[in-house]
Amino acid sequence: MSSSETKKADSLEGYRGIALNLLRNAQACIGCRILVKTGDGFEISGILIPRYEHADEKHLVLKLKSGYNVGVDTSNIISISVIEPSNPPVETSVSPVFSQTGRKVLLLSTGGTIASKVDYRTGAVHPALSADDLYSAVPELGKIAAIHPEVVFSTYSENLNPTHWQKLAERIVASSSDSSLDGIVVMLGTDTMAYVSAALSFALLGFRFPVVCVGAQRSSDRPSSDSALNLNAAVRFAAYSKTSGVYIAMHEDTSDGTVAIHSGSRVRKNHTSRRDAFESIDVPLVAEVKGSEIHFITNPEVLNARSQVDASLLMKTKFEPRVSLLKFHPGFDAGVLDYFEEKNSMGIIIEGSGLGHVSSETVARIEELTKGGLFVGMTSQCIWGRVDLNVYDTGRDLLNAGVLPLEDMIGETAFTKLSWALGNFQRERVEQVMLTNVAGEITSRTSP
Amino acid sequence: MSSSETKKADSLEGYRGIALNLLRNAQACIGCRILVKTGDGFEISGILIPRYEHADEKHLVLKLKSGYNVGVDTSNIISISVIEPSNPPVETSVSPVFSQTGRKVLLLSTGGTIASKVDYRTGAVHPALSADDLYSAVPELGKIAAIHPEVVFSTYSENLNPTHWQKLAERIVASSSDSSLDGIVVMLGTDTMAYVSAALSFALLGFRFPVVCVGAQRSSDRPSSDSALNLNAAVRFAAYSKTSGVYIAMHEDTSDGTVAIHSGSRVRKNHTSRRDAFESIDVPLVAEVKGSEIHFITNPEVLNARSQVDASLLMKTKFEPRVSLLKFHPGFDAGVLDYFEEKNSMGIIIEGSGLGHVSSETVARIEELTKGGLFVGMTSQCIWGRVDLNVYDTGRDLLNAGVLPLEDMIGETAFTKLSWALGNFQRERVEQVMLTNVAGEITSRTSP
Repeated sequence: MSSSETKKADSLEGYRGIALNLLRNAQACIGCRILVKTGDGFEISGILIPRYEHADEKHLVLKLKSGYNVGVDTSNIISISVIEPSNPPVETSVSPVFSQTGRKVLLLSTGGTIASKVDYRTGAVHPALSADDLYSAVPELGKIAAIHPEVVFSTYSENLNPTHWQKLAERIVASSSDSSLDGIVVMLGTDTMAYVSAALSFALLGFRFPVVCVGAQRSSDRPSSDSALNLNAAVRFAAYSKTSGVYIAMHEDTSDGTVAIHSGSRVRKNHTSRRDAFESIDVPLVAEVKGSEIHFITNPEVLNARSQVDASLLMKTKFEPRVSLLKFHPGFDAGVLDYFEEKNSMGIIIEGSGLGHVSSETVARIEELTKGGLFVGMTSQCIWGRVDLNVYDTGRDLLNAGVLPLEDMIGETAFTKLSWALGNFQRERVEQVMLTNVAGEITSRTSP
Repeated sequence: MSSSETKKADSLEGYRGIALNLLRNAQACIGCRILVKTGDGFEISGILIPRYEHADEKHLVLKLKSGYNVGVDTSNIISISVIEPSNPPVETSVSPVFSQTGRKVLLLSTGGTIASKVDYRTGAVHPALSADDLYSAVPELGKIAAIHPEVVFSTYSENLNPTHWQKLAERIVASSSDSSLDGIVVMLGTDTMAYVSAALSFALLGFRFPVVCVGAQRSSDRPSSDSALNLNAAVRFAAYSKTSGVYIAMHEDTSDGTVAIHSGSRVRKNHTSRRDAFESIDVPLVAEVKGSEIHFITNPEVLNARSQVDASLLMKTKFEPRVSLLKFHPGFDAGVLDYFEEKNSMGIIIEGSGLGHVSSETVARIEELTKGGLFVGMTSQCIWGRVDLNVYDTGRDLLNAGVLPLEDMIGETAFTKLSWALGNFQRERVEQVMLTNVAGEITSRTSP
């Protein structure tokens, strides 16, 4: 992370091995327009763009005049010549353009694949792509809505923590004074996007615009990048859906047709690399976006249960950082709980086995923690389904030990909710807050 | 767990509230044959069986002469009378019966729902159902094969740890001297069954019979119990499949038609309560069992890669207990790693975010641990897909910190494999063992 943020402009950034040698010999640099001749008689000219996929040293990537990126296999290259030097960085306009549609969307950038990979038309080297850059790189966004881009921070999502969630929530809340706004899009890294969307679902209760989190699984220097489709759909949903609540917009399948809109509190990244990695857990999608059309599948007002939410819970943007998520496993060393007690931890969410179980030794240790006031909530590492501590003896022992079973909340969502609940409310109210469905995070026992 | 193991015979075990009062007033006890009259004119007679589903106080459960269990709603009961006292416990035959099929299966019992809930025909109260009991309760097993039942231990699966895995593996290895055996069935609690099946997959490399793990999601005092179907299919696969390797046999869907046979190293409990909770991850099923037919989907010899396994890896049944599985989350407190160092931990499997990432702070702390010789392997909390530490800077930082990326091994499987590798081999060999596909736990990069 830090090495990326501090990375300096390098004339051949991201290239190594054979590709680097070829480019050095040709005295090419990032942003140059080069002409490449290949063994099978082709000539390709384009602007050399930097590489971010460190795994691959066998391809040069050129941006063609058409705007497409192509990869050229180095083993096939006969010659490279520079036909135009690198352009100096062009300052693209960052002032918002009011779209003819009259819609207005705030586009917040936080980092991640969608923001850290450059559309390299200008030849400039950016350490990370800002919302401004992205807006100028995906100009069709302007046809959907007037985009007001802003960089909130620029961090790989694995480094985002409750402090970042709070900063982001506060920035969003501050935008509520803008009566001309229709919605907000937040560009995030996908690694922890579901944690962030869940956290925002709680912190933005009562917020009147839709907030749509969006990312990319494939960087824009790969032909299969999903950035543009996801971003277009996110902006469309933010501009036109007239909902409130927090959502994730990502590819619904491996085709390029449909973007799924997930409820922010019931979604999970279930694949390391596929473009359709995100799945709604035990609930249907909120909507699908196909081209310019939004097809609602769930009524988001019902899903988010907003009408039932107590006014004292609205727009509470703090998060308590001393909260942990622990996964139980066979032979789990219950002594590790001592560490959290010593560090004055405020709460722990456990992903138990099956219906929400841990070993007898762990139950005994948990009881000591809860007696000291530490909150312990139970979810299941199964991911799908509901915990139930009333079926087996172990479950009843856990109830007696002061553990709160958290229905069918996803473990990651329960973790963000606990951080929020402990950050904003008195300790004695936390159990009640955790068991109240405030943002669609708990489904009814009678629903499918 | 302990409270269940030590539970004494109780004349109305498991009943409470309204049901308990009704039964007390009638002087009924578990094992009595009672006559129940209901408000809608029905009379039902059957043996009162104990309840294990603590959540429900509104039903009596009777075993009818047909062998079926029925629940009777207490709100509908007019009268209860005892028509036959409780029978004394009947010693059912435990001597193995050679089935006419000539097949022979060793049925090992370890505890769990499938074994802890009583088929209550005899009126006796057992603290847990032994393999003997189950064999007499599901007599149709004898038509498939001669069953040799044996209780290895009787423990809820959340209390099973690497010591139990080792004991179980040693018992199974000892059976290899019985040339008349066709296969082995292991009855387990479903909570950690996938961990056990993975552990056995490694410990039993080179073992010549199929070992089929089986459990039940619903206890036998519920009409929807899956015990019998799963057990029949497991015994059939053990008796007839002529494979080797370790498998899990559980309902394939919510109907009662088909049992899925999963590869023991690539399966996960993905639902807290559904009967089809187990899913193969990123691989097809090994087989389906429908009635008396076994339909192979994958060639298990190919799947398990046995032909390629180095002889020095075979039948190594030890497990190192000082191994942990840690899930990364936003705001993860890297200081917790100090605890494991202080406790002389031998290895840690991390479930990172996305392609296998953790925060910068955590990377730095991991580097200190690996320098001290502790093994750290990376998997992904996404569950599906492969880790890749060559794409982003964080990944490369992790490689530099000495972290081993574990391809597409499931986190839970990687944890059991590390316990096995550290238990049986020199430390300097562990990296190579972890990256070698020995039991189908790593799929080829070119496979779908």
